[in-house]
Amino acid sequence: MPTSSFTHDQLLDRLAEVSVRTGLNITPGQQLIITAGLEAVPLIRRITAHAYKAGASLVTTLYQDDETTLARFQHGHEDSFDTAAGWLANGMAEAFGKGAARMAITGGNPTLLKDQNPDHISRVSRASSTAYRPAMERITNFDINWNIIACATPAWAEQVFPHLPAEEALTALWNGIFQASRVDVADPVAAWADHNRTLHARAAMLNDRRFDALHFTGPGTDLTVGLADGHLWAGGAEEAKNGIVCNPNIPTEEVFTTPHCARVEGTVSSTKPLFHQGSLIDGIRVRFEKGRIVEAHASKGEDVLKRILDSDEGARRIGEVALVPHSSPISRSGILYQNTLFDENAACHIALGQAYTKCMTNPEGQSEEELIARGANHSIIHIDWMIGSDRINIDGLKDGQRTPLMRSGEWA
Amino acid sequence: MPTSSFTHDQLLDRLAEVSVRTGLNITPGQQLIITAGLEAVPLIRRITAHAYKAGASLVTTLYQDDETTLARFQHGHEDSFDTAAGWLANGMAEAFGKGAARMAITGGNPTLLKDQNPDHISRVSRASSTAYRPAMERITNFDINWNIIACATPAWAEQVFPHLPAEEALTALWNGIFQASRVDVADPVAAWADHNRTLHARAAMLNDRRFDALHFTGPGTDLTVGLADGHLWAGGAEEAKNGIVCNPNIPTEEVFTTPHCARVEGTVSSTKPLFHQGSLIDGIRVRFEKGRIVEAHASKGEDVLKRILDSDEGARRIGEVALVPHSSPISRSGILYQNTLFDENAACHIALGQAYTKCMTNPEGQSEEELIARGANHSIIHIDWMIGSDRINIDGLKDGQRTPLMRSGEWA
Ligand SMILES: [Zn+2]
Ligand SMILES: [Zn+2]
Ligand SMILES: [Zn+2]
Ligand SMILES: [Zn+2]
Repeated sequence: MPTSSFTHDQLLDRLAEVSVRTGLNITPGQQLIITAGLEAVPLIRRITAHAYKAGASLVTTLYQDDETTLARFQHGHEDSFDTAAGWLANGMAEAFGKGAARMAITGGNPTLLKDQNPDHISRVSRASSTAYRPAMERITNFDINWNIIACATPAWAEQVFPHLPAEEALTALWNGIFQASRVDVADPVAAWADHNRTLHARAAMLNDRRFDALHFTGPGTDLTVGLADGHLWAGGAEEAKNGIVCNPNIPTEEVFTTPHCARVEGTVSSTKPLFHQGSLIDGIRVRFEKGRIVEAHASKGEDVLKRILDSDEGARRIGEVALVPHSSPISRSGILYQNTLFDENAACHIALGQAYTKCMTNPEGQSEEELIARGANHSIIHIDWMIGSDRINIDGLKDGQRTPLMRSGEWA
Repeated sequence: MPTSSFTHDQLLDRLAEVSVRTGLNITPGQQLIITAGLEAVPLIRRITAHAYKAGASLVTTLYQDDETTLARFQHGHEDSFDTAAGWLANGMAEAFGKGAARMAITGGNPTLLKDQNPDHISRVSRASSTAYRPAMERITNFDINWNIIACATPAWAEQVFPHLPAEEALTALWNGIFQASRVDVADPVAAWADHNRTLHARAAMLNDRRFDALHFTGPGTDLTVGLADGHLWAGGAEEAKNGIVCNPNIPTEEVFTTPHCARVEGTVSSTKPLFHQGSLIDGIRVRFEKGRIVEAHASKGEDVLKRILDSDEGARRIGEVALVPHSSPISRSGILYQNTLFDENAACHIALGQAYTKCMTNPEGQSEEELIARGANHSIIHIDWMIGSDRINIDGLKDGQRTPLMRSGEWA
């Protein structure tokens, strides 16, 4: 079922071109570091060619292999699971410090480690997070232009389309990715420029209004989300600190900002299942008091949800609120990707945990305590979670005034 | 044409096991860094599993892709060719400094860059050598255990067996690699232990004799190779400075030492073609006076040979002399691999250029000048070049005494 008159190879090449030109906006002379699974080789070859054509001085891809990752858990000695490739992480941090751009290709097997020892998994994950902190800070601080796109893989396709034969599932997932990434149109780079203008206009409108709070109503939902003092709405292309305007996420449909972590009140119900580290959580219903979740239920995976909420104190508060119309292409596709890069762009969502300091005015120079006092939540987790649908209405609240923002899931 | 009763997968697994156990002799807790082409994925997966079973704390493979290497030369901007991945080289140097082991898989397309701009190739090569110097010094100083093995690839197989259909050529190359690497026998690890004993006994015999010089005679050859003062013969497994006994090269058939770079006299003819950076040099005939090549001819590629000899002053002198019996398995196979890892193990050879300081007594603490004074040659090149055959005789010379060492290419 082709989504367009383009061949798969043409669409793959367009995805590569969009990721280099719109996603990274790579600058002549910049090095580029890519991380990807081995299934991405055909996509990486096209990205590499586009990056050199755009003037990249050197493109280096660090490939991950699900099979050797699994081999580590199957054969590694008990005392080996606290080891990380610190030498490689330090090399990447050095490259980012010297101005290299970063691209990540998502799409590995979401259930790869389902039969492995959870203690080993968490030790490996902790060692890796610690080793990569200096490199990751360059990304989270937005020091450099970066981009993440997806590559369909057989294991991911099987999860998303369990009832289709393997080859059809892979084709269906690729077509979903191509559509959501807006590369199945006549001029994808121009389409992204249009799309960025729309998102920027939405964010500008919301920044002009300076609402105190948003009020969500719908089935099982009556939630008031206070916004942080000096919150900023963002969405679409943004300027990194190296001065390069890039689109970190492809696809992206959201405008988002920082809620006030002490001013969230009421009840909210999830509208789509949440996939977290291979587990399914569905039918979530939680009640907030003064920003804190004081009651939490789920029809599936309630134990996993409760473990998430106990991660740290900030895990019971929210750090992001994002608006996505129900008519967004990803929502219309009806596909549940089980991958946040896609699913968070199918519906309005909130995120448990850490806030983005870039969604606050003048965050530089302010201490973490000062930002928290203004409402920016702090946590080791950031988990997006869908609360929007075609039955949700949203109002903006300011000085006792109520402005309709969304009606039946669409911009009012 | 199977070489043994083992399946391809079994032989691949044995090659992986031998490379980890005999080649690296990896120690529990050691990290391992592998470099390989994408064609090596099935071999790498087996190596990785064996390394974890042997106690490796983490195995990281850095994949190279001939296609993206080519894309750089095809699409890169003119000013991009002096860039290297210094950040990655620094990361590797850090890892080796902290005790990581190193494995390299050879086998890429030998003629990949034949149509690319030679100036761009040499700029890239110079930038890369400079960036990798700190990492390479850990290897050339033998600070850590390391190993190099081969993986057959379609492009390499086509060069070696140009008259076979692609699939047969690949099978023939794999079978050659498996045989030469001694993994097509009942117990490859035991076979390597035997083989190492044989090579160590040869080296010990030669170290006992302490010859002043070797005299090679045969068709077109009457060459006296003086040996360096305090030369040492080596061959087979060796102890790295981290205390681990490893087999750096698989296969290996040679015992080798440092000639005296000022005491080589006479004429020598090559017995096999030499493949250098995609060029063929054949029918070499050179004359030495006081260690220096004063006359050089080749029936094919004489211009390339003369360019090599002009690399620097040390390029006209030799830094290695190695003895390999004509009955070595690689020689018997009759295959010309066009890859030094194999071809240098098919015949006695000499190397133009840099000497190995490990083939000198007490090299530590001595300056380069002191080593040169004892006869160890110095050059930016090291090019092995076959002079042995079944028509070559070799005598050891000492204090006017002549001892038969090899007759008709075999140990006397
Ligand atoms: Zn979001
Ligand atoms: Zn989020
Ligand atoms: Zn040699
Ligand atoms: Zn050599």
